[in-house]
Amino acid sequence: MGKYDEIRQNAWKANLRLPGLGLVIFTFGNVSAADHELGVFAIKPSGIPYAELTAEQMVIVDFDGKTVEGKLRPSSDTRTHALLYSRWDLVGGIAHTHSTYATAWAQALRPIPISGTTHADYLGTDIPCTPPMDEEMIRGDYEFETGMQILRTMEENKLDPGSTEMILVGSHAPFAWGSTADTAVYHSAVLERIAHMALLTEQIRSDSARLNEPLIQKHWKRKHGPDSYYGQ
Amino acid sequence: MGKYDEIRQNAWKANLRLPGLGLVIFTFGNVSAADHELGVFAIKPSGIPYAELTAEQMVIVDFDGKTVEGKLRPSSDTRTHALLYSRWDLVGGIAHTHSTYATAWAQALRPIPISGTTHADYLGTDIPCTPPMDEEMIRGDYEFETGMQILRTMEENKLDPGSTEMILVGSHAPFAWGSTADTAVYHSAVLERIAHMALLTEQIRSDSARLNEPLIQKHWKRKHGPDSYYGQ
Amino acid sequence: MGKYDEIRQNAWKANLRLPGLGLVIFTFGNVSAADHELGVFAIKPSGIPYAELTAEQMVIVDFDGKTVEGKLRPSSDTRTHALLYSRWDLVGGIAHTHSTYATAWAQALRPIPISGTTHADYLGTDIPCTPPMDEEMIRGDYEFETGMQILRTMEENKLDPGSTEMILVGSHAPFAWGSTADTAVYHSAVLERIAHMALLTEQIRSDSARLNEPLIQKHWKRKHGPDSYYGQ
Amino acid sequence: MGKYDEIRQNAWKANLRLPGLGLVIFTFGNVSAADHELGVFAIKPSGIPYAELTAEQMVIVDFDGKTVEGKLRPSSDTRTHALLYSRWDLVGGIAHTHSTYATAWAQALRPIPISGTTHADYLGTDIPCTPPMDEEMIRGDYEFETGMQILRTMEENKLDPGSTEMILVGSHAPFAWGSTADTAVYHSAVLERIAHMALLTEQIRSDSARLNEPLIQKHWKRKHGPDSYYGQ
Repeated sequence: MGKYDEIRQNAWKANLRLPGLGLVIFTFGNVSAADHELGVFAIKPSGIPYAELTAEQMVIVDFDGKTVEGKLRPSSDTRTHALLYSRWDLVGGIAHTHSTYATAWAQALRPIPISGTTHADYLGTDIPCTPPMDEEMIRGDYEFETGMQILRTMEENKLDPGSTEMILVGSHAPFAWGSTADTAVYHSAVLERIAHMALLTEQIRSDSARLNEPLIQKHWKRKHGPDSYYGQ
Repeated sequence: MGKYDEIRQNAWKANLRLPGLGLVIFTFGNVSAADHELGVFAIKPSGIPYAELTAEQMVIVDFDGKTVEGKLRPSSDTRTHALLYSRWDLVGGIAHTHSTYATAWAQALRPIPISGTTHADYLGTDIPCTPPMDEEMIRGDYEFETGMQILRTMEENKLDPGSTEMILVGSHAPFAWGSTADTAVYHSAVLERIAHMALLTEQIRSDSARLNEPLIQKHWKRKHGPDSYYGQ
Repeated sequence: MGKYDEIRQNAWKANLRLPGLGLVIFTFGNVSAADHELGVFAIKPSGIPYAELTAEQMVIVDFDGKTVEGKLRPSSDTRTHALLYSRWDLVGGIAHTHSTYATAWAQALRPIPISGTTHADYLGTDIPCTPPMDEEMIRGDYEFETGMQILRTMEENKLDPGSTEMILVGSHAPFAWGSTADTAVYHSAVLERIAHMALLTEQIRSDSARLNEPLIQKHWKRKHGPDSYYGQ
Repeated sequence: MGKYDEIRQNAWKANLRLPGLGLVIFTFGNVSAADHELGVFAIKPSGIPYAELTAEQMVIVDFDGKTVEGKLRPSSDTRTHALLYSRWDLVGGIAHTHSTYATAWAQALRPIPISGTTHADYLGTDIPCTPPMDEEMIRGDYEFETGMQILRTMEENKLDPGSTEMILVGSHAPFAWGSTADTAVYHSAVLERIAHMALLTEQIRSDSARLNEPLIQKHWKRKHGPDSYYGQ
């Protein structure tokens, strides 16, 4: 068994879950799985439909975005994944989709306000949204700059990738991550649900208020950190 | 056959229905089944996905929330279920989900107005919504206090759990109940549909009026009480 | 083979289509099939879930609403079906559902404006909505009066049941019909789709105009009447 | 094997994909596949449900809209397909559906604004919408005039069918196309998703801005043209 087989398998299985969770049609998304010891990750090849995907097709790429092993071209978003892995040691999986509701918030350039405990079960802040990229970034190494936008927005909002595991790239679509590729997909699905409910909440009550801080802290802490006890 | 087998089976089967009815993803909900003679209920264990659930994993808990039998940790919402069973003798099943539309109304802190006969077929009043919990409740025994909020809101609105079998916990999500675990799930699905249609009704007509009282009484009574004759 | 077997089969099969078309959950609808020569119709029994329904359970009822054959209680909406059959000789099937979007328009007490050719392919007018029933009607023979509301609204709008095969009962839900039970279900599904698109059209453009009359006539006539040639 | 077998197969398979992609119910759509060398196309016969369709039933029609081979009547929209093929040499497939969200934009007579990179991955402009047809066109050869409206709107907006592969026919519904029938269906599904997200974007932010031009160009060019490298 090759040294990359495990991340190939994990990336492959995680990509296959996207259509069943309603997060993608056609090739509207990609998931990767990293091995930080080996300094590489496995990612979906470019343009292959999920139904035809095999584990062997996953492309092995290093954290500079260079292909290490694999015959196919890696996803065009590979440079974004690579940059995030190179900075975030504890992140083992990243998922990028164009899921309908989360993408709509990204297109509207609005962070998703924390409006209920479902949101607070996963993160204690609004889901951040990066500003749209300026002309210079777009003309540069676009996918690398997309990663830079994510890193800058996290930093400016004083967020760390261990507590805030999802973000909207303004004008574009969401990225989510976690300790494994599977968790990254899980967070993508949670984000989509939160994005849908946040819009509905505003439609039901135009002056709807943000969740109060004690409730945020309660839900966040019962699921995360030393005193967590949560599970439905 | 053990004395808890029946409620274990009933709770297990009722939990399994949640994903197929579109009420949950992952572990976004839990159902319990009570035996009031034995003073216990069976509830979903914490954090186990529905697809992997077995009847044997259901946890048996008494009405104080203490585990009586079972190896796994019961759902984190167990204290809420326990309190409701301890006060409501005729309720044999409780379901808690984060279903999309009902949760959005809960997040908007609005009762669902009775806007058609579909709603009146199930209850003769608006679907109540508890106020958000204050800081003291949140810092106390949170899940017990969630149950207290439900009991207080029912009482303040002069509602009894035999006629009003669903409620929104403000900022959080819905609870529904009934004579069995199956009925509780049934009411959760009905609530989700009513919640969706109530929002659409307001979107179609911003000044839409409440259903008139004679129609409420007619639909409510043709399905409930001594002269009921309803069924589609 | 009994003389009612054909309508029993037709009613049964038509009822079974409702869940798959997304028009009902649980028992939120009923379909009937009439035999005008025998002066009877077959209708779903009350309160039986679609998955458990058998052809033998269909109840045979005459046009006064009296059960002619069958062991179960017919749908509580039977009197409405009976009245419509007694007046409309050419209608061979009637379907009543609480489908989400059509019911929301009924709850908003608004006819569905004709806003595109999809609508005009099926009828050349707005989809009518009856006024809510007054207290006297409600206290009387409610389901019979529901049928009377339908007949009056059709008459007041100068509509005939051969050209306008769907209506909203205000505060309640839609009825649709056709030459067979199958066609009635077909029209229920078309109505639901039209209802959804009409709401979206208003959301996309708040001052959206009614379809122009020549287009209405064109689409209506290419599908109906002596010069019809339509089919996609 | 007959000379029309390949386009018959391609048209048949492409039509079969429509229901699974959620683009049609019943017979709400049709797809055709052209052979420009033979000067003909294969199209769905009129009024046959997708589930009952066979490859043999596809009707072979020339670019004047005359049936060349086949026992059934071709789709009533055949003249529109014929006209477009007669003018567009590189288009090998055309799909027409009444998909919910795209049709709602057509009914609202609004082009779909380019509000995110998902849209820009497929076309660099708003998705055009033809004006509603005037009385003379409607009374003339209606389906031919529908094609003329599409051609005029493309020309007036300086769009070519190789770069802009989808359009809304005002008051009616969308058409999409591509090098093959399969690609035409693919573009129909992409259009439906874009149409849904564009509405949501406006609902989330009423003053939402158009995507900036550098981002449009970047996404458009990374997927199309000489320097393309895109695939997820």
